[in-house]
Amino acid sequence: MQNRQWLINGNPRGRAMRSDDFLRNEVELSPLGEGEVRIKVEYLSFDPSLKGQMENIGYADATALGEVMRASGVGEVVESKAAFVPVGAKVMGLLGWQDYATLPGDQVEIIENHDLLTAYLGPLGGTGLTAYFGLLHNGKPKEGDMLVVTGAAGAVGSMVGQIGKIKGCDVVGVAGGPEKCAWIVNEVGFDAAIDYKNDDVKKAIKEHCPNGIDIFFDNVGGPVLDIALARIALYARVIICGAISRYEMEKPPPGPANYFNLVFKRAHMMGILVSDHAKEFPQARAEIAEWMRQGKITYKEDIQEGFDNIPATLNRLFSGQNFGKQLLRMD
Amino acid sequence: MQNRQWLINGNPRGRAMRSDDFLRNEVELSPLGEGEVRIKVEYLSFDPSLKGQMENIGYADATALGEVMRASGVGEVVESKAAFVPVGAKVMGLLGWQDYATLPGDQVEIIENHDLLTAYLGPLGGTGLTAYFGLLHNGKPKEGDMLVVTGAAGAVGSMVGQIGKIKGCDVVGVAGGPEKCAWIVNEVGFDAAIDYKNDDVKKAIKEHCPNGIDIFFDNVGGPVLDIALARIALYARVIICGAISRYEMEKPPPGPANYFNLVFKRAHMMGILVSDHAKEFPQARAEIAEWMRQGKITYKEDIQEGFDNIPATLNRLFSGQNFGKQLLRMD
Repeated sequence: MQNRQWLINGNPRGRAMRSDDFLRNEVELSPLGEGEVRIKVEYLSFDPSLKGQMENIGYADATALGEVMRASGVGEVVESKAAFVPVGAKVMGLLGWQDYATLPGDQVEIIENHDLLTAYLGPLGGTGLTAYFGLLHNGKPKEGDMLVVTGAAGAVGSMVGQIGKIKGCDVVGVAGGPEKCAWIVNEVGFDAAIDYKNDDVKKAIKEHCPNGIDIFFDNVGGPVLDIALARIALYARVIICGAISRYEMEKPPPGPANYFNLVFKRAHMMGILVSDHAKEFPQARAEIAEWMRQGKITYKEDIQEGFDNIPATLNRLFSGQNFGKQLLRMD
Repeated sequence: MQNRQWLINGNPRGRAMRSDDFLRNEVELSPLGEGEVRIKVEYLSFDPSLKGQMENIGYADATALGEVMRASGVGEVVESKAAFVPVGAKVMGLLGWQDYATLPGDQVEIIENHDLLTAYLGPLGGTGLTAYFGLLHNGKPKEGDMLVVTGAAGAVGSMVGQIGKIKGCDVVGVAGGPEKCAWIVNEVGFDAAIDYKNDDVKKAIKEHCPNGIDIFFDNVGGPVLDIALARIALYARVIICGAISRYEMEKPPPGPANYFNLVFKRAHMMGILVSDHAKEFPQARAEIAEWMRQGKITYKEDIQEGFDNIPATLNRLFSGQNFGKQLLRMD
């Protein structure tokens, strides 16, 4: 049986991705080894960190040229030599950019509730868990805290805002364009939105946060981080989750000049990496799923279609085209 | 009786201090009010934050033009209308740049041990307490941690290194010039020194910290902070205490471009302000005094002389001329 794949063919460090960074490939599937499963990929998940892993600047192990592009996905087990992972099961795992993934059975997670299949790539997946642990563990939200989130219409940001509301925070989101801003206020339940493409962000933050920002959850970096640092409240928590503004620059942009306000406000600025909390994932997923059942979590998916569109779909994240969690359904 | 004073006459924000930022003044002392004490100033303490308070950029309440320059000092009570503060007592407090300070009796602290008079402006004063709480409360040092301190020959930095050694850390200091570097290693007990004026700091940090930096205690800011952020270990604590490199610039210099390494290392960068710990000062002073008795704390004083030299003495901090805690003995 044939397996179409997209291989890594370039290192996009310091520049935008190009179509020749990926190479289309087709191989014959080899027989399953003992303990392995074969999964027909149904949905792939897209995150900015996919570019990061190609650039080998941090997160996961470096990827190498010629490898199948690594990415999370969900799919159906079509063949199994692993106990406990039956044919027909829906699973999630690092399936990669290909029609069929072959993995050790203990590296996939069985999804019992098929209705929530793609939610395992969103609110119940890496982005939801990042929001959950980043806000609750690092942000330590209290009733009445002023929480400001960037990338607020994104998969992580929209979850952060909603969990913040559940915990009793006042939540302001920073997003790009009137459509995203309307969505986070009218449908997601943020208290206010700031449109960084059209508003004076500095003035808007001052207006919305007259007593300063208690928790700043940053997915973007760049000038908005600096503006926020100038407005943090005493004992603020600044959570650095991502910095999409850094991804296409030749060298890292200047850091936040206002970092010294951390001293005046005795504040903490800290990183979050969700994999540190792997042991707590089941408990977190159960709590998020319960919030979903109670109707407290709204999420939006942006689903592209087809194997051929995979590389272009990754680029949507960097051009701000996606609206909602970026997914792709395989053909 | 006449009282000589130095008044604030300019705002040095964004530039070096000039002699006309201060105005020499002489006034007749007025009679003491009920509850007040009069102190003959014996020693004044100099810290970079004195310039900060003139610039009104943070720490204390803003100072105003025409006020007596505020500063800590020690002296002897020469007149008292306050219960519990007898004439002849040695006290510390915000005495200011003048011959005689007049203060409410409850705003001075009596120094019992006259042998340690100036130590109350050093290891037992604001700088020692800043080192103590900054390192112990925020840095949470563990046996074997790699601690790197900037401004290592300074009043705060040299204390941080010594408390780090007491707690079992490996301690590397960054200081300017061979004399300061020799002092922190040979007399203060640091494990190693890096001379930022003559060494390749990046290479030296890499050599001295092959497993990265667990605690970075920063009194300086600027390029060394950025180099250190690139070398932090997993779960590192970056303590921002001061940034003397920021003081004479027109606008804040760029922030640390490598701040994003906080994410990769799940590290914390945080501010420290010693006044947050005021309730714990007595316990901290007792512990530091005990270390001093045990010979575990070395400190150096740089004592200038005379009322006329007060403004020039403040400038010594910004030109790196001082070696040891900067004090001035009144004439």
